[in-house]
Amino acid sequence: MRAIEWNASDGTLLLIDQTRLPAEHVVVACSTVDQVVDAVERLVVRGAPALGAVGGYGVAVAMLQGEREGWSSERLDAEIVRIRDARPTAVNLAWGSDRVAPLRSQGIDAVLAEAAVIMVEDEAANRELSRLGADWILERTGRDRVRVLTHCNTGFLATTAWGTALGIVRELHARGALEIVYADETRPLLQGSRLTAWELQQEGIDYLVQADGAAASTILRGLVDVAIIGADRIALNGDTANKIGSVGVALACADAGIPFVVAAPSSTVDLTTVSGDDIHIELRDGSEVTHLAGVATAPPEARGFNPAFDVTPSRLIAAIVTEKGIVEPDGHSSVEALVVSS
Amino acid sequence: MRAIEWNASDGTLLLIDQTRLPAEHVVVACSTVDQVVDAVERLVVRGAPALGAVGGYGVAVAMLQGEREGWSSERLDAEIVRIRDARPTAVNLAWGSDRVAPLRSQGIDAVLAEAAVIMVEDEAANRELSRLGADWILERTGRDRVRVLTHCNTGFLATTAWGTALGIVRELHARGALEIVYADETRPLLQGSRLTAWELQQEGIDYLVQADGAAASTILRGLVDVAIIGADRIALNGDTANKIGSVGVALACADAGIPFVVAAPSSTVDLTTVSGDDIHIELRDGSEVTHLAGVATAPPEARGFNPAFDVTPSRLIAAIVTEKGIVEPDGHSSVEALVVSS
Repeated sequence: MRAIEWNASDGTLLLIDQTRLPAEHVVVACSTVDQVVDAVERLVVRGAPALGAVGGYGVAVAMLQGEREGWSSERLDAEIVRIRDARPTAVNLAWGSDRVAPLRSQGIDAVLAEAAVIMVEDEAANRELSRLGADWILERTGRDRVRVLTHCNTGFLATTAWGTALGIVRELHARGALEIVYADETRPLLQGSRLTAWELQQEGIDYLVQADGAAASTILRGLVDVAIIGADRIALNGDTANKIGSVGVALACADAGIPFVVAAPSSTVDLTTVSGDDIHIELRDGSEVTHLAGVATAPPEARGFNPAFDVTPSRLIAAIVTEKGIVEPDGHSSVEALVVSS
Repeated sequence: MRAIEWNASDGTLLLIDQTRLPAEHVVVACSTVDQVVDAVERLVVRGAPALGAVGGYGVAVAMLQGEREGWSSERLDAEIVRIRDARPTAVNLAWGSDRVAPLRSQGIDAVLAEAAVIMVEDEAANRELSRLGADWILERTGRDRVRVLTHCNTGFLATTAWGTALGIVRELHARGALEIVYADETRPLLQGSRLTAWELQQEGIDYLVQADGAAASTILRGLVDVAIIGADRIALNGDTANKIGSVGVALACADAGIPFVVAAPSSTVDLTTVSGDDIHIELRDGSEVTHLAGVATAPPEARGFNPAFDVTPSRLIAAIVTEKGIVEPDGHSSVEALVVSS
């Protein structure tokens, strides 16, 4: 199944529980707003494009629960906002919710149809940006086969299908133009070693998992031709919020003179956010850092500092790739071109 | 007790088992070369200055075992070399062994006395470099109280007493000039969250543990005034090998315009290593990356890439602090001054 599916038979949102992978494959069924919010907050489902679809289907879950429980229109509004704002950094969650919510007056079928369109469009966008990104990378690096570093998970689990940065990796692999992937493990929640490794394993792609602290030296030692990451919000000036650890990868790429590429559907571009300074960085519970899989990794009294994202300034980004095209930021250019229909 | 102690009553080398901290406080007693080599390889004892003392006492362990088992002189030589070369990157292990080994002809008491001198000198060096480093940092930053980022563990566990980078932290704390420490957890083996946090907790120093991937953004966000790390080998041109993840911290400091400070006893300076290119980086087992505390964090088939150290080029280092003085590398200067007696 996909990371996100709508079960029409009972009107529930089905999510692969990404907190349990790769050890267990568990599907969570959400029929209430509380369940959707909990799934988003606990990262049962995560990844900016995936959250766009959840924002859309979340409106349907709220409507169906409201019908069962006789909610007022105001209550329904408030419950939809709870889903919309369950995580602050990825713009896609609010984008998906805001896109679908106006269709409420046309009934549940119209809402579900629009949410389904988000799914279809996202997959198409992922596949198109993967083609564009692979072209750009092979052109820029001048290599027949590239060695890629990636951070966090941006594959089919993080999207509605296929993937963004990992979609480019899959496209390169399909072309026979991929040598190896260095996957940062991505502490604290290990989306790299748990999810990206699992996806690459299934695809038969050669990869190595490394500690996040190894990324800079792997790049400086010349073991990598390009770094490709996803995005949770791309500001007007090209500054990009992504999983904590991304800007460290970008600094190493700049020092080594290799391209740092951001890959995302155009729904991740937020023209109302002027620069990275305006992006709200989610601060998650410190216990995610002081524990791992329930095991304490620090003294009992230790406090963790746990920003979930960081901001990479556009000056460190060689290319932002969306399905609408590619922008090569120079610290001054805007990314408006990426959200205007081509 | 100290991380390393000689038990004169039964002729054994006592080591606090640093793989078990902070959950358990276990002491390992080594009476054979196999036990010493195993303790070094498994990181029961680690930290460049601590390994210097182990190199010294390791000669005594080998001599006593050789007496019991009637080893030839050649066998004894070979066994001492096994300890000397048990880990390749930190120069101190070989340095300590080579310093003590020539005294074998004078008997075990002379060997033990010289190993004890290494301990005494190392603590004195740590305390002196901590004073010099604290002076330099307060002068350079112009602040009354500094916010420090550190990576890995460089405290009394990593040395014979007091600490190097963490020694400077303790000195700043004693002067009332320390605001907070951001301790990188230091994957894969978590020397930061397990050992540095434990030491800071005992000292009553305010600290936060963060994922290694958070270091760059913590620095770029202006939350830190200085980064201070230790060293496993300092080359003639100032290039410095240290725990994997160090060069990423250095890149962020350079970008943010804050000083990146290396703190080590002069025994860590290796004039026979011309530059970082000549430093042998230990590649440890990949399972340290794909597992944590025995729990798999990646698919069963996943391979880990696990360099234990990286090299920070001298151009990214604001100051190298030893007990002999401070060198501010500019990419061209040598560090010879640091090993000439002041």
